[in-house]
Amino acid sequence: MISEKPLVPKNIERLQPYVAGKTIAEVKERYNPARISKLASNENRLGCSPKVKEAVLKALGEIQDYPDPASRKLRQMIADRNEVKPENVIVAAGSESLIAIICRTFFLDDENAVTADASFVGFFVQAGIRGIELKKVPLTGDYRFDVDGLLGAVDHQTKMIYIANPNNPTGTYINKYEYLYLLEQLPDDLMLINDEAYFEYARQIEDYPVGLDYNRKNVIVLRTFSKAYGLAGCRIGYAIADANLISVMMKTKLTFEPSVTAQAAAAAAYEDEAFLEESLRVVEKGRERLFKLFDSHGIDYARSISNSVMMVLDNEEKAKIFTQKMLETGVILRRTHSFGIPNAIRITIGTEEEMDHFERSFHQVLALM
Amino acid sequence: MISEKPLVPKNIERLQPYVAGKTIAEVKERYNPARISKLASNENRLGCSPKVKEAVLKALGEIQDYPDPASRKLRQMIADRNEVKPENVIVAAGSESLIAIICRTFFLDDENAVTADASFVGFFVQAGIRGIELKKVPLTGDYRFDVDGLLGAVDHQTKMIYIANPNNPTGTYINKYEYLYLLEQLPDDLMLINDEAYFEYARQIEDYPVGLDYNRKNVIVLRTFSKAYGLAGCRIGYAIADANLISVMMKTKLTFEPSVTAQAAAAAAYEDEAFLEESLRVVEKGRERLFKLFDSHGIDYARSISNSVMMVLDNEEKAKIFTQKMLETGVILRRTHSFGIPNAIRITIGTEEEMDHFERSFHQVLALM
Repeated sequence: MISEKPLVPKNIERLQPYVAGKTIAEVKERYNPARISKLASNENRLGCSPKVKEAVLKALGEIQDYPDPASRKLRQMIADRNEVKPENVIVAAGSESLIAIICRTFFLDDENAVTADASFVGFFVQAGIRGIELKKVPLTGDYRFDVDGLLGAVDHQTKMIYIANPNNPTGTYINKYEYLYLLEQLPDDLMLINDEAYFEYARQIEDYPVGLDYNRKNVIVLRTFSKAYGLAGCRIGYAIADANLISVMMKTKLTFEPSVTAQAAAAAAYEDEAFLEESLRVVEKGRERLFKLFDSHGIDYARSISNSVMMVLDNEEKAKIFTQKMLETGVILRRTHSFGIPNAIRITIGTEEEMDHFERSFHQVLALM
Repeated sequence: MISEKPLVPKNIERLQPYVAGKTIAEVKERYNPARISKLASNENRLGCSPKVKEAVLKALGEIQDYPDPASRKLRQMIADRNEVKPENVIVAAGSESLIAIICRTFFLDDENAVTADASFVGFFVQAGIRGIELKKVPLTGDYRFDVDGLLGAVDHQTKMIYIANPNNPTGTYINKYEYLYLLEQLPDDLMLINDEAYFEYARQIEDYPVGLDYNRKNVIVLRTFSKAYGLAGCRIGYAIADANLISVMMKTKLTFEPSVTAQAAAAAAYEDEAFLEESLRVVEKGRERLFKLFDSHGIDYARSISNSVMMVLDNEEKAKIFTQKMLETGVILRRTHSFGIPNAIRITIGTEEEMDHFERSFHQVLALM
């Protein structure tokens, strides 16, 4: 008997499967480059705080135990650091989990979200899984969120606006004035998700708006331990918001996320200001270096304040060729087509040696194009 | 302006918040017992394989890197062990994540699921989050799934039947004959979720049906590293099913679950047969001991083949009192009201010392009731 019932809902059917990139081993075997520089995933190329290892070892001593579903210790720590209360904090398995939680918690059927046509692909994916319509507003000519455009796209079915500040993959930001304007124009019953995954890199910039300084009841600020804190492998991030919003999210997160090891690692990393400062310093230096390199070659790029720089080429074909040729020299970059910009490449800023490697390969490859 | 739009959908509003139990520190401070035995969460009281530590330490060396979204290494390992292909395997952040993935992937609006009125609360919770109607069939008089009852509850909107075999919190099982009958009666377009979280404890029982032996296209078998493998703190489990089912689940799991550390820990634990065998031996011994204790006191209980025993009292009030008084002696147990059985208590089987502690307290508390 052939079933007439669909296996899955249409929005699930329409989802694109994740296409795994080559593993490092595969890249080595295929191209045999002299060295490999992983500059595709915006990871912290310095690694993570040396304090993490000891903390995780300690946590392993009781790894047979389930985590505290209320993550009381870590939420208290994050609350203290950010001068809020634990009921304003939720921890979960990374920004993508927080975004998934938000998508499954707050949307009624037929409600939509407004965002840019080029932003964190994780939000596009989770909206797709939940079957949420996204109203996408083009970025400005300098690759930034268009605040008036976002507000103009809001209709009576709009539940929230999602921004990433700094943005991914562009590394650009909207400044204090633009952010305040956005907040002031938002109706009270419209939510703003302010994804500050790259906050630590941006926080010293004078006109960068620190989301938590504004204390709005309808704003959820997202932060992560995956980038500057170097814990992408652990899966842990947090959100800070009004207690009403956090309390519903606490009902829809997995009971036992994030893991015991992730929480131990995050707590240790969170205390290591020295490691964080060094990470920021290396990225700032590498970023300036990349800007100079691109300027001297007349290459278009987005002015970034995060840990990557987006290089813009004439068209998608050139972006594909450049990325492939860099891969063959062992430099792994991320094309940004799935983020909404088919003719650009996102380059994670690495260590000095990795930037040397990038520069050597860059000259080599450019000469071929 | 007061908003007329609800913040969340009705099914989300109806969810009960998780009520955190007392921490160990709180129990110590409040009751000052001579020792504490955590027998509430079905964790492996022996801990985990000694091989886990080294594997996690190694993984920490590159913890700044995101996990492989396709978990190729671990899926190959699990596939080899179970004589299937990697495309038949998915790994995720524990059984609760697999259940969440299943709930968000396969249900069209208005489809329902059939299960027992007393089973793994995680399934009830994820169904609630997704707004899925559950048709709950009472357990048999001896606390087992009622196969005819389950089949009888199926209607034209039923997408799947969920069973846990062995069941939680009862520890009971349906045997080979009942399981085959269930499979034979299932329409091809009806899915069966066979949650084998406690599989390792049951696998030697002669008439226990090993889900993977039946090779059905419409069955998803769930397994975990949280129980016998002692990795509840890591958050990792796997499912094995037809490639068509696994491939859609791969689209809806979080891109980066499970964590690097969890995958390293699981791979190491999976290889340690000696530790697993010892864990099973200790549980079998402790389980027999509990049966004898209950028999000698005329206490009702469910015949379990997993790592806990469910003790049945006359009514909910007695269950509350017993649990509370045991807590005061430092023995932490789990009341089973949220699983659907208000008058019972689930007792994890622990080490010999923990079972000595349980027995001492049991006699003490029983004398007071």
